[in-house]
Amino acid sequence: MNQINRVAIVGGTHGNEFTGAYLVKKFSQFPDLIAKLSFETVTLLANPKAFAVGRRYIEKDLNRCFLKQELQDPTLESYEELQAKSIQNTLAASAKKVDFILDLHSSTANMGLTIILVNNHPFNLKLAAYLNYINPLVRVYRCSFQSVEENPFLNVLCELGFAIEVGPVAQGILKSTLFQQTEKLVHEVLDYLERFNKDEIPSINETLVMYQHLSVVDYPKQEDGTIWAMIHPQLQDRDYQALNPGDPIFLTFNDETIVYQGESTIWPIFINEAAYYEKGIAMCLTQKLQINL
Amino acid sequence: MNQINRVAIVGGTHGNEFTGAYLVKKFSQFPDLIAKLSFETVTLLANPKAFAVGRRYIEKDLNRCFLKQELQDPTLESYEELQAKSIQNTLAASAKKVDFILDLHSSTANMGLTIILVNNHPFNLKLAAYLNYINPLVRVYRCSFQSVEENPFLNVLCELGFAIEVGPVAQGILKSTLFQQTEKLVHEVLDYLERFNKDEIPSINETLVMYQHLSVVDYPKQEDGTIWAMIHPQLQDRDYQALNPGDPIFLTFNDETIVYQGESTIWPIFINEAAYYEKGIAMCLTQKLQINL
Repeated sequence: MNQINRVAIVGGTHGNEFTGAYLVKKFSQFPDLIAKLSFETVTLLANPKAFAVGRRYIEKDLNRCFLKQELQDPTLESYEELQAKSIQNTLAASAKKVDFILDLHSSTANMGLTIILVNNHPFNLKLAAYLNYINPLVRVYRCSFQSVEENPFLNVLCELGFAIEVGPVAQGILKSTLFQQTEKLVHEVLDYLERFNKDEIPSINETLVMYQHLSVVDYPKQEDGTIWAMIHPQLQDRDYQALNPGDPIFLTFNDETIVYQGESTIWPIFINEAAYYEKGIAMCLTQKLQINL
Repeated sequence: MNQINRVAIVGGTHGNEFTGAYLVKKFSQFPDLIAKLSFETVTLLANPKAFAVGRRYIEKDLNRCFLKQELQDPTLESYEELQAKSIQNTLAASAKKVDFILDLHSSTANMGLTIILVNNHPFNLKLAAYLNYINPLVRVYRCSFQSVEENPFLNVLCELGFAIEVGPVAQGILKSTLFQQTEKLVHEVLDYLERFNKDEIPSINETLVMYQHLSVVDYPKQEDGTIWAMIHPQLQDRDYQALNPGDPIFLTFNDETIVYQGESTIWPIFINEAAYYEKGIAMCLTQKLQINL
């Protein structure tokens, strides 16, 4: 593998996820914080219009605009579709394309500090394992899309890198503790990349616990499409904890408990993420795997 | 004082505050839940367009549209200004005007279960004291506007009643525990009104602890108007707790702590409310008072 020459730290891909947006603003104001000897670090506020109005997006979710075929489609002209093409140009198509992308997100779900992998590149896996090793609160989630072609996330612009999803934090606010934890995690990533360039990668355990995406669960709904239940009190905030058949998952508006009817234990995440109500996702179900690196 | 004949339960005055909006939807679907023998209870989803898109408002904050002079101004025609006039007609101007309004709000701040009084009507004070007596977690806040004429809140349409502000909960989600606590509080209010009509008001303590609004504090800002600090970790979630001169309130983006420089103890609330970033409010400062009823 070649040296890493340019690294992008991206924030505000969703305009109401302030943690990443303000971290990027901080880093761009104080570039010394992210300056390394062996590579250049650039910052990008990915959806400035949505950030300015404090909304996830203006016309379309930017982090669903990076399908290869859509980036090449000149008829797609919504604000976010044009923004995605511009970001592709900046980060992936120019002579100064980056070698590593860190995309900073936040969630109303209790995601802690989550690394979202869009591929199984050994470098990404080893870095994720390292981050989990030095901070066991860091968890690793492998997202649902199996191939780059069907994955619409910004991170597909570069095979190295991943998204960081932190929570719980409401949309449109900064929670300082989570801001500081995210900032620390960014520095740990940059330090690792610097050590990689110097051929000083620390040696750690050879296994990684990864949460592999299985499926999504929608809210129970009425005939008119409105939701008919809430996340059950016993499931709220229990992201990454084992859910067994028979465990409560929803509480309906007429006070009935709906239980998980699967046949085996799963590990739900993104439980009660605000932005997923409109996507018909109450939670994502994952399988907990231990993989060898 | 006359009998209470009609009561309005209002939710979704802010479209992304789901607790109240879905409680109102639940009550309108199951009217038996709020049916009482001695009065009629009506429900109102106050800002249906904003609720449909999951935003606080479409053009203007609806809960700032109830200034008497603006309700009478035919030139004001934004969606929310028209909606405010329509709500005034429904709740306050018709032959079937209501005698009591409960307006359900939620906050990203740790507001617990807060009653927001817009006046000092003895009935409201006694009801608030009763609710605090049966559940000490209920707190009572007297808002900043001293006269009805300068108060733009929906609750000014009726001298009896108040807003309920619950939190912390992110915008655009339902947190079932808080939903249940709010529902219980609504039932306690309705039960009290029923007992008032039957002349069976319970006798309780003759004092009430009230948090009287003093002032608001804005975020430290840069020259371009962007915020330059976050709520300090030591202040986050400490709504209704005493803040003394010298206590940390902000953490700047260059990691400096800003302390409270007032001369006496105050009690901050609405700490880190998402909707108040655009209003230039990082928190509201209150004075803790014990008043005799």
